[in-house]
Amino acid sequence: MLIALLTDFGTQDYFVGAMKGAILSINERAQIVDITHEIRAQNINSASFTLRACYKDFPEKTIFVVIVDPGVGSERRAILVEATNYYFVAPDNGLLSFVFDEEKNFKVYELTHEKFFAQTVSRTFHGRDIFAPVAAHLSNGVSPDEFGAEIEDYIRLKTAAPREISKDRIEAEIIHIDRFGNLITNLKPPDLPEKFALEIGGSTINRLQTFFAGADGGELFMIFGSTDFLEVAAFQNSAAKQLDVQVGQQIVVTKL
Amino acid sequence: MLIALLTDFGTQDYFVGAMKGAILSINERAQIVDITHEIRAQNINSASFTLRACYKDFPEKTIFVVIVDPGVGSERRAILVEATNYYFVAPDNGLLSFVFDEEKNFKVYELTHEKFFAQTVSRTFHGRDIFAPVAAHLSNGVSPDEFGAEIEDYIRLKTAAPREISKDRIEAEIIHIDRFGNLITNLKPPDLPEKFALEIGGSTINRLQTFFAGADGGELFMIFGSTDFLEVAAFQNSAAKQLDVQVGQQIVVTKL
Amino acid sequence: MLIALLTDFGTQDYFVGAMKGAILSINERAQIVDITHEIRAQNINSASFTLRACYKDFPEKTIFVVIVDPGVGSERRAILVEATNYYFVAPDNGLLSFVFDEEKNFKVYELTHEKFFAQTVSRTFHGRDIFAPVAAHLSNGVSPDEFGAEIEDYIRLKTAAPREISKDRIEAEIIHIDRFGNLITNLKPPDLPEKFALEIGGSTINRLQTFFAGADGGELFMIFGSTDFLEVAAFQNSAAKQLDVQVGQQIVVTKL
Repeated sequence: MLIALLTDFGTQDYFVGAMKGAILSINERAQIVDITHEIRAQNINSASFTLRACYKDFPEKTIFVVIVDPGVGSERRAILVEATNYYFVAPDNGLLSFVFDEEKNFKVYELTHEKFFAQTVSRTFHGRDIFAPVAAHLSNGVSPDEFGAEIEDYIRLKTAAPREISKDRIEAEIIHIDRFGNLITNLKPPDLPEKFALEIGGSTINRLQTFFAGADGGELFMIFGSTDFLEVAAFQNSAAKQLDVQVGQQIVVTKL
Repeated sequence: MLIALLTDFGTQDYFVGAMKGAILSINERAQIVDITHEIRAQNINSASFTLRACYKDFPEKTIFVVIVDPGVGSERRAILVEATNYYFVAPDNGLLSFVFDEEKNFKVYELTHEKFFAQTVSRTFHGRDIFAPVAAHLSNGVSPDEFGAEIEDYIRLKTAAPREISKDRIEAEIIHIDRFGNLITNLKPPDLPEKFALEIGGSTINRLQTFFAGADGGELFMIFGSTDFLEVAAFQNSAAKQLDVQVGQQIVVTKL
Repeated sequence: MLIALLTDFGTQDYFVGAMKGAILSINERAQIVDITHEIRAQNINSASFTLRACYKDFPEKTIFVVIVDPGVGSERRAILVEATNYYFVAPDNGLLSFVFDEEKNFKVYELTHEKFFAQTVSRTFHGRDIFAPVAAHLSNGVSPDEFGAEIEDYIRLKTAAPREISKDRIEAEIIHIDRFGNLITNLKPPDLPEKFALEIGGSTINRLQTFFAGADGGELFMIFGSTDFLEVAAFQNSAAKQLDVQVGQQIVVTKL
């Protein structure tokens, strides 16, 4: 059984090792895959986007352990989501909002049955003490409803959606910047007029390409990337550096 | 059989790949887990702390390959430690000092039997040529005493312990700074008076919390983290940056 | 069956997770090993060197998926190389040049049979949509010649070789700088006179050591590293920082 990890724990500390040890101590045959541990510290939106961008590539029955947890140790709840093809284990802080948008049928259970946690649960590291053990027990065949009661009032963030600000203008934003400096926006094809330009960080971009190669070095262009969302890129250069923009930066779409 | 890797090799070079290849060439069924390869280059103390912080989370019989090796190629010895539940393979330079403190019963063998090494042993990369092959052969069932003679004079660093400098003051230090900028000190509960404050980098901290959430943004506080050691943290901020401190920085505990 | 990944995708995005998910969706029993995903973005030479430095450490039949792909989505071809002991899947852009130099017998197939690709192939992420699925099908036993026709006109970069510029001087270059700041040159033992010095970045280095320990802190020296190539190192220091040099920097060998 596959357990995929997505956290903001970084890879320089003992955190990820401790989680893997905890999983393998309960199910030594678990197959653990790292999605990333480099989510910017405590950035729930970025983790939520990253999960959405890849979870459907995994085989059915994969268990995703998703942890960005600024509220660890406080009263925030821990949840297990059983969707049609996948399981998700996470703090109840909106991390799974994109999953709730994408999935048609799912149940959410609050993790309360302590027999599936570590014997001693620290106040600061539920990744090791709650989420990893729960995922491992789940991979051992424990039924989702054994971990706690089903709940309806789980937290679901209004995932950022573009909004029309006038007949010819739509306000959108940058939701992620990838390793290559490409800007991922919250704009999908149905949001967009037939012909349009983007205003972003004082620049106007109106070239739409279908692949990365071909543009002149450094020229900015728009592209529909591998995640359905409109991206802004610069051939062999970082669009983020060139435009000097950050995640959360506003974009305006202008109808042409 | 599980082989867990903890090194300062970084993840940008071929080093880790070469080690994994070397292991899998000897035991293709070995299950390899990365703890971290991001130990600060040649920092033995940080590696020793990181190992201590997570090795007990792993299943019994796990083989830990721990490499921070400034003396590679010189006369420093290579060792295999057989403890009650775990095996450790490392250069003999003090890396396992915390393990020697934590474990009651263990034997230390010097790695000398070259038939368990790579056919050609480079002078600069014993991770690939000695430690990985030894771990792989061990995972294949070779008995620890077949790798070389038992030794008693292995290197054991005096792991930093706090010391009382007057009736009301204890001198301690920062032994690790984690990804979130939390400062891990060498202070454990038995070292501390009932009520106390910390002086560190010109600041005094006297708030003790039991979890991260709840403090005002940026406020500094003390917390017993997930490793038994007292930590200094700042809610939604890096305590390290806020205090501008480094690993090794002195701390003074004042009895209140 | 082992599938080893070497890319410039970084570890902070969903890219690597998506590739692993795509592989495991086709062959859930595939054993995936990360070599590195931290190749400098779009640096084909560095990826080619890194692959060469470690692929022979892996067990026979390992499938290497090597992706640095500035031309993704354009007309550049995708290839599968069947060598005596290994398979390689990569864009046809010179990434495998060192492999072509090292291997005596190999066949190159162009990847054209779309039934082995993802159902929808994006224009920007062939790692997930072509290379990962092909590697997974190969690991499931599909024969190399089923993926497409054999080709002869694959791209083979002239891997940088030193050249004699006068009777006593050889011009060489830095092909890689590792995590420790050691400079890997393109000089191998047969290229070098019996006694020699290196001129690099305004400094002359004439000390040749056989291991890293022993030199005074910060002293620069030459060493034959673990990859056959001459390296320049500084004991407990970064030679790259000390000399302020970059990959591609010219070096001159002077016969003594």
